[in-house]
Amino acid sequence: MDTVRVIEVKQSVFANNDKRANLLRDELKAKKTYLLNVMSSPGSGKTTTLVKTINMLKNEMRIAVMEADIDSDKDAKTVVRETGVDSIQLHTGGMCHLDAEMTRQGIAELAKDYDLIILENVGNLVCPAEFDTGACKSINILSVPEGDDKPLKYPLMYQVSSLVLINKIDVKPYFDFDSEKCKEYIARRNPHCQVLEISAKTGEGIEEFANWLRDEVKNWKE
Amino acid sequence: MDTVRVIEVKQSVFANNDKRANLLRDELKAKKTYLLNVMSSPGSGKTTTLVKTINMLKNEMRIAVMEADIDSDKDAKTVVRETGVDSIQLHTGGMCHLDAEMTRQGIAELAKDYDLIILENVGNLVCPAEFDTGACKSINILSVPEGDDKPLKYPLMYQVSSLVLINKIDVKPYFDFDSEKCKEYIARRNPHCQVLEISAKTGEGIEEFANWLRDEVKNWKE
Repeated sequence: MDTVRVIEVKQSVFANNDKRANLLRDELKAKKTYLLNVMSSPGSGKTTTLVKTINMLKNEMRIAVMEADIDSDKDAKTVVRETGVDSIQLHTGGMCHLDAEMTRQGIAELAKDYDLIILENVGNLVCPAEFDTGACKSINILSVPEGDDKPLKYPLMYQVSSLVLINKIDVKPYFDFDSEKCKEYIARRNPHCQVLEISAKTGEGIEEFANWLRDEVKNWKE
Repeated sequence: MDTVRVIEVKQSVFANNDKRANLLRDELKAKKTYLLNVMSSPGSGKTTTLVKTINMLKNEMRIAVMEADIDSDKDAKTVVRETGVDSIQLHTGGMCHLDAEMTRQGIAELAKDYDLIILENVGNLVCPAEFDTGACKSINILSVPEGDDKPLKYPLMYQVSSLVLINKIDVKPYFDFDSEKCKEYIARRNPHCQVLEISAKTGEGIEEFANWLRDEVKNWKE
Protein backbone atom coordinates (compact mmCIF):
# COMPACT_ATOMS: atom_id res chain seq x y z
CA MET A 1 0.00 0.00 0.00
CA ASP A 2 1.44 3.33 -1.01
CA THR A 3 -1.37 5.61 0.14
CA VAL A 4 -1.66 6.98 3.63
CA ARG A 5 -4.24 9.27 5.10
CA VAL A 6 -3.02 12.84 5.44
CA ILE A 7 -4.81 14.91 8.08
CA GLU A 8 -4.52 18.71 8.08
CA VAL A 9 -4.50 19.47 11.80
CA LYS A 10 -5.40 22.96 13.00
CA GLN A 11 -3.75 24.84 15.82
CA SER A 12 -5.86 25.14 18.93
CA VAL A 13 -8.11 28.15 19.31
CA PHE A 14 -8.00 27.52 23.05
CA ALA A 15 -5.61 29.61 25.11
CA ASN A 16 -4.89 26.99 27.72
CA ASN A 17 -2.87 24.26 26.04
CA ASP A 18 -1.80 22.75 29.37
CA LYS A 19 -5.41 22.22 30.39
CA ARG A 20 -6.25 20.59 27.03
CA ALA A 21 -3.17 18.38 27.36
CA ASN A 22 -4.23 17.20 30.81
CA LEU A 23 -7.73 16.46 29.54
CA LEU A 24 -6.30 14.40 26.68
CA ARG A 25 -4.10 12.47 29.11
CA ASP A 26 -7.13 11.71 31.28
CA GLU A 27 -8.99 10.38 28.23
CA LEU A 28 -6.00 8.22 27.25
CA LYS A 29 -5.75 6.88 30.80
CA ALA A 30 -9.44 5.91 30.72
CA LYS A 31 -8.94 4.17 27.36
CA LYS A 32 -5.69 2.54 28.58
CA THR A 33 -3.85 3.96 25.59
CA TYR A 34 -0.26 5.07 26.10
CA LEU A 35 0.78 8.05 23.97
CA LEU A 36 4.50 8.63 23.38
CA ASN A 37 5.75 11.95 22.01
CA VAL A 38 9.01 11.58 20.06
CA MET A 39 11.01 14.75 19.40
CA SER A 40 14.36 15.43 17.74
CA SER A 41 16.26 17.52 15.22
CA PRO A 42 15.47 16.92 11.56
CA GLY A 43 17.23 13.79 10.34
CA SER A 44 18.18 12.28 13.70
CA GLY A 45 16.54 8.99 12.78
CA LYS A 46 13.09 9.12 14.41
CA THR A 47 11.31 7.12 11.72
CA THR A 48 13.99 4.45 11.40
CA THR A 49 14.09 4.03 15.19
CA LEU A 50 10.30 3.71 15.33
CA VAL A 51 10.19 1.16 12.50
CA LYS A 52 12.76 -1.07 14.21
CA THR A 53 11.07 -0.80 17.59
CA ILE A 54 7.53 -1.33 16.30
CA ASN A 55 8.59 -4.50 14.48
CA MET A 56 9.83 -5.81 17.83
CA LEU A 57 6.57 -4.97 19.65
CA LYS A 58 3.75 -5.21 17.12
CA ASN A 59 2.84 -8.83 17.86
CA GLU A 60 2.34 -8.18 21.57
CA MET A 61 0.45 -4.87 21.51
CA ARG A 62 -1.79 -2.79 19.23
CA ILE A 63 0.28 0.10 17.87
CA ALA A 64 -0.50 3.14 15.74
CA VAL A 65 1.74 5.95 14.56
CA MET A 66 1.02 9.62 13.85
CA GLU A 67 3.70 11.27 11.73
CA ALA A 68 3.72 15.06 12.01
CA ASP A 69 5.35 17.11 9.29
CA ILE A 70 4.94 20.47 7.66
CA ASP A 71 4.82 18.80 4.28
CA SER A 72 5.23 15.36 2.59
CA ASP A 73 3.74 12.02 3.61
CA LYS A 74 7.01 10.15 3.31
CA ASP A 75 7.31 9.09 6.95
CA ALA A 76 3.78 7.69 7.30
CA LYS A 77 4.28 5.71 4.09
CA THR A 78 7.59 4.34 5.41
CA VAL A 79 5.97 3.20 8.66
CA VAL A 80 3.07 1.49 6.87
CA ARG A 81 5.35 -0.17 4.33
CA GLU A 82 7.93 -1.37 6.82
CA THR A 83 5.79 -2.31 9.84
CA GLY A 84 2.20 -2.71 8.61
CA VAL A 85 0.78 -0.91 11.65
CA ASP A 86 -1.82 1.85 11.29
CA SER A 87 -0.19 5.13 10.44
CA ILE A 88 -1.46 8.59 9.52
CA GLN A 89 0.35 11.71 8.44
CA LEU A 90 -0.47 14.94 10.26
CA HIS A 91 0.20 18.13 8.33
CA THR A 92 0.72 21.10 10.60
CA GLY A 93 0.03 23.79 8.02
CA GLY A 94 3.49 25.31 8.41
CA MET A 95 3.40 25.09 12.22
CA CYS A 96 6.67 24.16 13.91
CA HIS A 97 5.15 21.96 16.61
CA LEU A 98 2.02 20.11 17.68
CA ASP A 99 -0.20 21.25 20.53
CA ALA A 100 -2.66 19.11 22.51
CA GLU A 101 -5.60 20.00 20.26
CA MET A 102 -3.72 19.03 17.09
CA THR A 103 -2.73 15.76 18.75
CA ARG A 104 -6.35 15.12 19.77
CA GLN A 105 -7.48 15.68 16.16
CA GLY A 106 -4.97 13.09 14.99
CA ILE A 107 -6.03 10.51 17.60
CA ALA A 108 -9.71 11.03 16.66
CA GLU A 109 -8.82 10.09 13.07
CA LEU A 110 -7.22 6.83 14.22
CA ALA A 111 -10.66 5.66 15.39
CA LYS A 112 -9.60 2.19 16.61
CA ASP A 113 -8.30 1.39 20.10
CA TYR A 114 -4.58 0.96 20.61
CA ASP A 115 -2.25 0.08 23.48
CA LEU A 116 0.43 2.39 22.17
CA ILE A 117 0.18 5.45 19.94
CA ILE A 118 3.45 7.00 18.90
CA LEU A 119 3.49 10.64 17.84
CA GLU A 120 6.49 11.60 15.77
CA ASN A 121 6.62 15.35 16.32
CA VAL A 122 7.98 17.94 13.83
CA GLY A 123 11.79 17.75 13.58
CA ASN A 124 12.76 20.74 15.73
CA LEU A 125 14.60 21.05 19.05
CA VAL A 126 12.93 24.28 20.09
CA CYS A 127 9.17 24.73 19.69
CA PRO A 128 7.88 21.16 20.26
CA ALA A 129 9.39 21.30 23.76
CA GLU A 130 7.21 24.28 24.62
CA PHE A 131 3.87 22.61 23.94
CA ASP A 132 2.50 19.74 26.00
CA THR A 133 0.90 17.40 23.44
CA GLY A 134 -0.98 15.42 26.05
CA ALA A 135 1.44 12.52 25.70
CA CYS A 136 2.14 10.27 28.69
CA LYS A 137 5.84 10.88 28.19
CA SER A 138 8.13 12.72 25.78
CA ILE A 139 11.44 11.40 24.57
CA ASN A 140 14.22 12.90 22.49
CA ILE A 141 16.44 11.29 19.89
CA LEU A 142 19.89 12.87 19.65
CA SER A 143 22.08 11.50 16.89
CA VAL A 144 25.87 11.30 17.10
CA PRO A 145 26.55 13.52 14.04
CA GLU A 146 24.67 16.41 15.71
CA GLY A 147 27.28 16.65 18.45
CA ASP A 148 27.34 16.07 22.20
CA ASP A 149 26.61 19.73 23.03
CA LYS A 150 22.94 19.83 22.07
CA PRO A 151 21.65 19.69 25.70
CA LEU A 152 23.63 22.90 26.37
CA LYS A 153 22.01 24.73 23.48
CA TYR A 154 18.42 23.48 23.71
CA PRO A 155 17.78 23.32 27.45
CA LEU A 156 13.99 23.00 27.49
CA MET A 157 14.02 20.01 25.11
CA TYR A 158 16.09 18.05 27.62
CA GLN A 159 14.16 19.31 30.65
CA VAL A 160 10.90 17.90 29.29
CA SER A 161 12.30 14.59 28.00
CA SER A 162 12.02 11.47 30.16
CA LEU A 163 14.40 9.48 27.96
CA VAL A 164 17.08 10.41 25.46
CA LEU A 165 18.06 7.91 22.79
CA ILE A 166 21.58 8.62 21.55
CA ASN A 167 21.21 7.31 17.99
CA LYS A 168 23.63 6.45 15.16
CA ILE A 169 26.27 5.09 17.55
CA ASP A 170 27.48 2.95 14.63
CA VAL A 171 29.15 6.06 13.14
CA LYS A 172 30.86 7.16 16.37
CA PRO A 173 34.34 6.43 14.94
CA TYR A 174 33.81 9.15 12.32
CA PHE A 175 32.64 11.93 14.64
CA ASP A 176 33.94 13.74 17.71
CA PHE A 177 31.18 12.69 20.04
CA ASP A 178 31.78 12.11 23.75
CA SER A 179 28.93 10.02 25.22
CA GLU A 180 29.95 10.67 28.81
CA LYS A 181 30.04 14.42 28.25
CA CYS A 182 26.67 14.25 26.51
CA LYS A 183 25.15 12.31 29.41
CA GLU A 184 26.56 14.85 31.86
CA TYR A 185 25.01 17.73 29.86
CA ILE A 186 21.65 15.91 29.76
CA ALA A 187 21.81 15.32 33.54
CA ARG A 188 22.48 19.03 34.06
CA ARG A 189 19.18 19.81 32.34
CA ASN A 190 17.25 16.93 33.88
CA PRO A 191 18.85 14.63 36.46
CA HIS A 192 15.95 12.14 36.14
CA CYS A 193 16.29 11.72 32.38
CA GLN A 194 17.26 8.21 31.30
CA VAL A 195 19.70 7.70 28.42
CA LEU A 196 20.03 4.73 26.06
CA GLU A 197 22.58 4.40 23.27
CA ILE A 198 21.18 2.90 20.08
CA SER A 199 21.78 2.41 16.40
CA ALA A 200 18.49 2.24 14.53
CA LYS A 201 20.52 1.13 11.50
CA THR A 202 22.23 -1.91 13.07
CA GLY A 203 19.55 -2.55 15.71
CA GLU A 204 21.93 -2.15 18.64
CA GLY A 205 20.09 -1.01 21.78
CA ILE A 206 16.61 -1.29 20.23
CA GLU A 207 15.71 -4.19 22.53
CA GLU A 208 16.46 -1.95 25.55
CA PHE A 209 14.22 0.77 24.15
CA ALA A 210 11.49 -1.79 23.44
CA ASN A 211 11.77 -2.95 27.06
CA TRP A 212 11.44 0.63 28.28
CA LEU A 213 8.27 0.97 26.19
CA ARG A 214 6.89 -2.38 27.41
CA ASP A 215 7.24 -1.18 31.02
CA GLU A 216 5.72 2.20 30.24
CA VAL A 217 2.67 0.73 28.50
CA LYS A 218 2.21 -1.87 31.28
CA ASN A 219 2.43 0.71 34.07
CA TRP A 220 0.04 3.06 32.28
CA LYS A 221 -2.64 0.37 32.16
CA GLU A 222 -2.45 -0.38 35.87
CA MET B 1 40.36 35.04 25.36
CA ASP B 2 37.60 32.92 26.81
CA THR B 3 35.01 35.62 27.42
CA VAL B 4 32.55 36.76 24.79
CA ARG B 5 29.82 39.34 25.04
CA VAL B 6 26.38 37.82 25.41
CA ILE B 7 23.51 40.03 24.28
CA GLU B 8 19.94 39.24 25.32
CA VAL B 9 17.98 40.26 22.24
CA LYS B 10 14.27 41.01 22.52
CA GLN B 11 11.61 40.05 20.03
CA SER B 12 10.25 42.94 18.02
CA VAL B 13 7.23 44.80 19.35
CA PHE B 14 6.58 45.91 15.78
CA ALA B 15 4.00 44.03 13.79
CA ASN B 16 5.62 44.47 10.41
CA ASN B 17 8.81 42.43 10.43
CA ASP B 18 9.17 42.63 6.64
CA LYS B 19 9.23 46.42 6.76
CA ARG B 20 11.87 46.41 9.53
CA ALA B 21 13.92 43.88 7.56
CA ASN B 22 13.86 46.10 4.46
CA LEU B 23 14.89 49.12 6.53
CA LEU B 24 17.80 47.19 7.99
CA ARG B 25 18.89 46.09 4.50
CA ASP B 26 18.82 49.72 3.35
CA GLU B 27 21.03 50.71 6.29
CA LEU B 28 23.46 47.88 5.51
CA LYS B 29 23.57 48.91 1.85
CA ALA B 30 24.42 52.49 2.85
CA LYS B 31 27.19 51.26 5.15
CA LYS B 32 28.40 48.77 2.48
CA THR B 33 28.08 45.93 4.99
CA TYR B 34 26.96 42.53 3.68
CA LEU B 35 24.90 40.52 6.14
CA LEU B 36 24.64 36.75 5.61
CA ASN B 37 21.99 34.72 7.44
CA VAL B 38 23.07 31.10 7.99
CA MET B 39 20.35 28.59 8.86
CA SER B 40 20.34 24.83 9.45
CA SER B 41 19.25 21.99 11.71
CA PRO B 42 21.00 21.70 15.07
CA GLY B 43 24.39 20.09 14.62
CA SER B 44 24.75 20.42 10.85
CA GLY B 45 28.12 22.12 11.22
CA LYS B 46 27.34 25.84 10.95
CA THR B 47 30.07 26.98 13.34
CA THR B 48 32.79 24.71 11.92
CA THR B 49 31.92 25.83 8.37
CA LEU B 50 32.09 29.48 9.40
CA VAL B 51 35.42 29.06 11.20
CA LYS B 52 37.04 27.45 8.15
CA THR B 53 35.61 30.05 5.75
CA ILE B 54 36.45 33.05 7.92
CA ASN B 55 40.07 31.93 8.24
CA MET B 56 40.22 31.95 4.43
CA LEU B 57 38.76 35.47 4.14
CA LYS B 58 39.73 37.38 7.27
CA ASN B 59 42.89 38.96 5.81
CA GLU B 60 41.04 40.46 2.85
CA MET B 61 37.88 41.80 4.53
CA ARG B 62 36.62 42.95 7.94
CA ILE B 63 34.40 40.20 9.34
CA ALA B 64 32.21 39.88 12.43
CA VAL B 65 30.01 37.02 13.60
CA MET B 66 26.76 36.98 15.59
CA GLU B 67 25.97 33.60 17.09
CA ALA B 68 22.31 33.15 17.99
CA ASP B 69 21.32 30.53 20.50
CA ILE B 70 18.67 29.96 23.10
CA ASP B 71 21.37 29.27 25.66
CA SER B 72 25.16 28.82 26.00
CA ASP B 73 27.95 31.00 24.57
CA LYS B 74 29.89 28.06 23.19
CA ASP B 75 29.70 29.03 19.51
CA ALA B 76 30.81 32.64 19.93
CA LYS B 77 33.75 31.45 22.04
CA THR B 78 34.70 28.94 19.35
CA VAL B 79 34.65 31.59 16.63
CA VAL B 80 36.78 34.02 18.68
CA ARG B 81 39.24 31.32 19.71
CA GLU B 82 39.64 29.79 16.25
CA THR B 83 39.47 32.86 13.98
CA GLY B 84 40.16 35.92 16.15
CA VAL B 85 37.41 37.95 14.43
CA ASP B 86 34.87 39.92 16.47
CA SER B 87 32.08 37.69 17.67
CA ILE B 88 29.11 38.15 19.96
CA GLN B 89 26.55 35.70 21.28
CA LEU B 90 22.89 36.59 20.91
CA HIS B 91 20.53 34.95 23.36
CA THR B 92 17.00 34.76 22.07
CA GLY B 93 15.29 34.27 25.44
CA GLY B 94 13.82 30.93 24.40
CA MET B 95 12.77 32.20 20.95
CA CYS B 96 13.17 29.75 18.09
CA HIS B 97 14.30 32.31 15.50
CA LEU B 98 15.62 35.83 15.02
CA ASP B 99 13.54 38.63 13.56
CA ALA B 100 14.85 41.84 11.96
CA GLU B 101 14.68 43.81 15.20
CA MET B 102 16.70 41.20 17.13
CA THR B 103 19.25 41.22 14.32
CA ARG B 104 19.42 45.04 14.42
CA GLN B 105 20.06 44.92 18.18
CA GLY B 106 22.94 42.54 17.59
CA ILE B 107 24.49 44.68 14.85
CA ALA B 108 24.22 47.78 17.06
CA GLU B 109 26.31 45.98 19.69
CA LEU B 110 29.04 45.27 17.15
CA ALA B 111 29.66 49.04 16.86
CA LYS B 112 32.57 48.87 14.39
CA ASP B 113 32.22 48.80 10.58
CA TYR B 114 32.55 45.49 8.77
CA ASP B 115 32.50 44.30 5.17
CA LEU B 116 30.81 41.06 6.16
CA ILE B 117 28.67 40.20 9.16
CA ILE B 118 27.62 36.59 9.47
CA LEU B 119 24.54 35.75 11.49
CA GLU B 120 24.40 32.15 12.66
CA ASN B 121 20.68 31.71 13.26
CA VAL B 122 19.11 29.32 15.82
CA GLY B 123 19.45 25.67 14.73
CA ASN B 124 15.96 25.02 13.39
CA LEU B 125 14.61 24.25 9.91
CA VAL B 126 11.17 25.72 10.52
CA CYS B 127 10.79 29.09 12.25
CA PRO B 128 13.94 30.95 11.08
CA ALA B 129 12.71 30.56 7.50
CA GLU B 130 9.54 32.49 8.37
CA PHE B 131 11.25 35.66 9.58
CA ASP B 132 13.24 37.95 7.32
CA THR B 133 16.25 38.99 9.42
CA GLY B 134 17.20 41.83 7.11
CA ALA B 135 20.13 39.83 5.74
CA CYS B 136 21.27 40.38 2.14
CA LYS B 137 20.96 36.66 1.56
CA SER B 138 20.08 33.53 3.51
CA ILE B 139 21.81 30.20 3.11
CA ASN B 140 21.14 26.74 4.50
CA ILE B 141 23.58 24.07 5.59
CA LEU B 142 22.26 20.53 5.15
CA SER B 143 24.53 17.80 6.49
CA VAL B 144 24.75 14.33 4.97
CA PRO B 145 23.67 12.46 8.16
CA GLU B 146 20.35 14.36 8.17
CA GLY B 147 19.28 12.68 4.92
CA ASP B 148 18.60 13.85 1.38
CA ASP B 149 14.84 14.30 1.99
CA LYS B 150 14.98 17.47 4.09
CA PRO B 151 13.87 19.79 1.23
CA LEU B 152 10.69 17.71 0.95
CA LYS B 153 9.88 18.12 4.63
CA TYR B 154 10.89 21.74 5.24
CA PRO B 155 9.77 23.49 2.05
CA LEU B 156 9.97 27.12 3.18
CA MET B 157 13.57 26.78 4.37
CA TYR B 158 14.65 25.86 0.85
CA GLN B 159 12.41 28.42 -0.83
CA VAL B 160 14.12 31.27 1.04
CA SER B 161 17.70 30.00 0.71
CA SER B 162 19.92 31.34 -2.08
CA LEU B 163 22.58 28.70 -1.49
CA VAL B 164 22.60 25.27 0.13
CA LEU B 165 25.87 23.87 1.45
CA ILE B 166 25.70 20.08 1.60
CA ASN B 167 28.10 19.52 4.50
CA LYS B 168 29.91 16.48 5.98
CA ILE B 169 30.46 14.90 2.57
CA ASP B 170 33.49 13.15 4.12
CA VAL B 171 31.09 10.72 5.85
CA LYS B 172 29.03 9.94 2.73
CA PRO B 173 30.27 6.31 2.65
CA TYR B 174 28.55 5.65 5.99
CA PHE B 175 25.14 7.11 5.13
CA ASP B 176 22.45 6.57 2.51
CA PHE B 177 22.61 10.03 1.01
CA ASP B 178 21.94 10.65 -2.67
CA SER B 179 23.36 14.07 -3.68
CA GLU B 180 21.59 14.11 -7.04
CA LYS B 181 18.24 13.34 -5.42
CA CYS B 182 18.88 16.02 -2.80
CA LYS B 183 19.71 18.61 -5.48
CA GLU B 184 16.55 17.68 -7.36
CA TYR B 185 14.45 18.16 -4.18
CA ILE B 186 16.13 21.54 -3.55
CA ALA B 187 15.43 22.62 -7.16
CA ARG B 188 11.78 21.65 -6.72
CA ARG B 189 11.53 24.13 -3.85
CA ASN B 190 13.67 26.80 -5.45
CA PRO B 191 15.03 26.39 -8.99
CA HIS B 192 17.41 29.35 -8.49
CA CYS B 193 19.07 27.95 -5.38
CA GLN B 194 22.76 27.18 -5.81
CA VAL B 195 24.25 24.07 -4.20
CA LEU B 196 27.84 23.43 -3.11
CA GLU B 197 29.13 20.22 -1.54
CA ILE B 198 31.58 20.77 1.31
CA SER B 199 33.27 19.14 4.27
CA ALA B 200 33.96 21.70 6.96
CA LYS B 201 36.05 19.02 8.66
CA THR B 202 38.45 18.29 5.78
CA GLY B 203 38.11 21.71 4.12
CA GLU B 204 36.82 20.29 0.84
CA GLY B 205 34.65 22.83 -1.01
CA ILE B 206 35.35 25.68 1.43
CA GLU B 207 37.31 27.62 -1.21
CA GLU B 208 34.22 27.53 -3.48
CA PHE B 209 32.05 28.86 -0.66
CA ALA B 210 34.63 31.57 0.09
CA ASN B 211 34.53 32.56 -3.60
CA TRP B 212 30.75 32.75 -3.48
CA LEU B 213 31.03 35.07 -0.46
CA ARG B 214 33.76 37.19 -2.13
CA ASP B 215 31.44 37.79 -5.10
CA GLU B 216 28.46 38.53 -2.86
CA VAL B 217 30.35 41.09 -0.75
CA LYS B 218 31.86 42.72 -3.87
CA ASN B 219 28.52 43.00 -5.65
CA TRP B 220 26.84 44.41 -2.54
CA LYS B 221 29.34 47.27 -2.36
CA GLU B 222 28.81 48.31 -5.97
